[in-house]
Amino acid sequence: MTLHDILKQLDLPIQGEDKPIDGIHTLENASPSQLSYAMAAKFGEALKATQAAAVFIPEAMKELVPSGCEGIVVENPELSMAYASRLFKKELVLPEKNAQIDETARIFEGAHMGTNVVVGPYAVIMPGVYLGDNVTVGAYTVLHPNTVIYHDCRIGERCIIHANTVIGSDGFGYAHTRQGEHIKIEQMGNVVIGDDVEIGSNTSIDRAAFSSTLIKAGSKIDNLVHISHNVEVGERTIIAGQAGIAGSTKIGKNVVMAAQSGSVGHITIADFTTVAARGGITKNTEPGKTYAGFPHMEHKQWLKLQAILSRLLKR
Amino acid sequence: MTLHDILKQLDLPIQGEDKPIDGIHTLENASPSQLSYAMAAKFGEALKATQAAAVFIPEAMKELVPSGCEGIVVENPELSMAYASRLFKKELVLPEKNAQIDETARIFEGAHMGTNVVVGPYAVIMPGVYLGDNVTVGAYTVLHPNTVIYHDCRIGERCIIHANTVIGSDGFGYAHTRQGEHIKIEQMGNVVIGDDVEIGSNTSIDRAAFSSTLIKAGSKIDNLVHISHNVEVGERTIIAGQAGIAGSTKIGKNVVMAAQSGSVGHITIADFTTVAARGGITKNTEPGKTYAGFPHMEHKQWLKLQAILSRLLKR
Amino acid sequence: MTLHDILKQLDLPIQGEDKPIDGIHTLENASPSQLSYAMAAKFGEALKATQAAAVFIPEAMKELVPSGCEGIVVENPELSMAYASRLFKKELVLPEKNAQIDETARIFEGAHMGTNVVVGPYAVIMPGVYLGDNVTVGAYTVLHPNTVIYHDCRIGERCIIHANTVIGSDGFGYAHTRQGEHIKIEQMGNVVIGDDVEIGSNTSIDRAAFSSTLIKAGSKIDNLVHISHNVEVGERTIIAGQAGIAGSTKIGKNVVMAAQSGSVGHITIADFTTVAARGGITKNTEPGKTYAGFPHMEHKQWLKLQAILSRLLKR
Repeated sequence: MTLHDILKQLDLPIQGEDKPIDGIHTLENASPSQLSYAMAAKFGEALKATQAAAVFIPEAMKELVPSGCEGIVVENPELSMAYASRLFKKELVLPEKNAQIDETARIFEGAHMGTNVVVGPYAVIMPGVYLGDNVTVGAYTVLHPNTVIYHDCRIGERCIIHANTVIGSDGFGYAHTRQGEHIKIEQMGNVVIGDDVEIGSNTSIDRAAFSSTLIKAGSKIDNLVHISHNVEVGERTIIAGQAGIAGSTKIGKNVVMAAQSGSVGHITIADFTTVAARGGITKNTEPGKTYAGFPHMEHKQWLKLQAILSRLLKR
Repeated sequence: MTLHDILKQLDLPIQGEDKPIDGIHTLENASPSQLSYAMAAKFGEALKATQAAAVFIPEAMKELVPSGCEGIVVENPELSMAYASRLFKKELVLPEKNAQIDETARIFEGAHMGTNVVVGPYAVIMPGVYLGDNVTVGAYTVLHPNTVIYHDCRIGERCIIHANTVIGSDGFGYAHTRQGEHIKIEQMGNVVIGDDVEIGSNTSIDRAAFSSTLIKAGSKIDNLVHISHNVEVGERTIIAGQAGIAGSTKIGKNVVMAAQSGSVGHITIADFTTVAARGGITKNTEPGKTYAGFPHMEHKQWLKLQAILSRLLKR
Repeated sequence: MTLHDILKQLDLPIQGEDKPIDGIHTLENASPSQLSYAMAAKFGEALKATQAAAVFIPEAMKELVPSGCEGIVVENPELSMAYASRLFKKELVLPEKNAQIDETARIFEGAHMGTNVVVGPYAVIMPGVYLGDNVTVGAYTVLHPNTVIYHDCRIGERCIIHANTVIGSDGFGYAHTRQGEHIKIEQMGNVVIGDDVEIGSNTSIDRAAFSSTLIKAGSKIDNLVHISHNVEVGERTIIAGQAGIAGSTKIGKNVVMAAQSGSVGHITIADFTTVAARGGITKNTEPGKTYAGFPHMEHKQWLKLQAILSRLLKR
């Protein structure tokens, strides 16, 4: 597919030099054969440095497009990107029997193995498990019944994933038309899970829009946890039951997120942060501190606030 | 079955004229061959206007029963209705192979197709999916692995339902005996999902007790969301991860419910309402406004409240 | 296996008299052939009374070990117990066809039946259900599609478990090394569910570390509920959607936990307690009272607090 093919399919005026395009990515990560987009002032620096073949931009950002990159002026760059993402969506391929399964791995009857699946030594794939195309499962990893691993996701060694957990479902990403319709941004990334990770039952970890949602080695995630697209969870971090992490947040190492806690998206939770039960993190945290409440504050402050409210009640 | 058959099976004294009864429904929706019930003063207007063949009522409401309808006086009408609902419960039918599946649809091995299932053109039914009896799935819709669609539910066109989501499980409805036992009200309605709806993974949408739980066209629902029986979700409404909506609440169009938000039951959330993360809606909202906190207040007020609490902490 | 075998495998110095060891349990419940552990002062009374064959203890508790029990001094008794628990972990056995299934039970195609499974009369096991080894399912119980019951769990009579719910996944229990790694404590208990229990869809109930997580007769649990290891739920208790109960908490009978409520672990919620929506219980409650807020207070106090906050906003 070429740039002009894409513009034609999106009913956009032909602009810029035609060139082959084989995918879509962020400004920072797009290769010279990929398309990208910029929305507003905060994208300026990344736009100036992008290696993308072409970018959808608003009129106002025209001057920032670097040489070698085609700036395609559109009304709503995110929406145009959402429409373009449809052109690169993968087919849901029918299963073929060319998986590479180590002879010591145990695959129970009733598991579904997609095309090009790789399963390492001594791994256990229980009944009703679904492995999408190109999934890899490391040595000694156990996938409990009815877990679903979408295509292209990678699970490390010695992991345990409990029943009915879903790895790699689509991130919740849409662009919006003037009429208030929501246009899906095809989620083309994956989930990569490190070694020695345990994940509880009925948990959902979404694939990245582009690149990867990362769960790093030694982290432990409980039941009914929601991890959105493009989140990073650091080494040995603990996330307890029913916690939820919004999109693109980076969680450091040895963090503890207690039960029913949460975090907004696009922030950084520093190494060794502890978030008390029900805590809702609304901006970057400092390493080693303990937070509580929503919006969050230091745990000591939260205890003080409860004491103040108790006194108000006794008046 | 006739009215007197039902009274006999419930060990209730025979009352009123005998007539055929073929189901149970609310006062507003019962047909002239259906049974209904009224509990208290707030049911009065609906009782006077009902077309039901017969109604379970408390002694005090006897005068309000319209002519042509048999008023059956019982101690606890909701409890009697719960017992009666057992008589109309559907059998869980063993599967037969008379589904109507469009020849362009792709049904993966390991999917279960109930009796009378209808699957439209180009739909994709992935491994481990369960379609109960009488389920319809529209054209181009994709059901990801291990999703479960209970009997009688209808899914529109171009929908995407992610892995391990459940559509049509029973609503959480019980009547209570004097001894504190909970008697199940058989959930006899269904779920109807409009066109262009996307639903994340591990989400639960319960069937209605009677009539339908509705998810209207173009709405988008994230992972681990709980939607109770008889809820209505309007066109193009967005419900983010881990939000929960209690029974019979009507949500308008283009509403946004952010992550971990919630709503009590039996209220109306107006068109274009926005509910911030963790917001808990406790009564009807006004169109176009943004709310936060629990109990909810306008978002600006909530920000002001946080500022006041911060000042209290600094004293 | 003997005590000295275990010490060798854990690279610990050989201590105490050698004796056969066939399992691990708490101080209170360990039999004379089981190993146990004590961490700190609060374990003192239980240690003095234990019947365990041997206990991992810190140096400081040496004097409290009763006669007939070997006190094994280690740096971190919980961590040593976690390592020892690996030695008693059950194999995930390949399925054999010796289940005892009543001839009136209906087992749908695509259900997985483990070794020694027992299914009572008129029970219904729908497609995609997984029953692990030694699971028992009582008469008239219905397991909806894709529910997963892990090994050794017991489900009572006349229960209904909705789709994609998981019973018996591992509790979220780890000991921690000095380097901040989390060492899994193998979860060797089970879940026991009484008669007449209904459980919604996408709910997770974890097995006990030792002994049993208990859901007693007549209780009703909604969708997306998280019940941690070693929790007890009393008779006829109601737990609504998205509530979560942390480990080892005992909930009495006829308790109501409303939607999105929660409780910390290791406390007692008294009989007839009501917890309002979003209420977060942080310590023992009194019977028959209604609580709200987090940290919880009596509901009347919570309403008063909301009124005070409203007045602050109007100043």
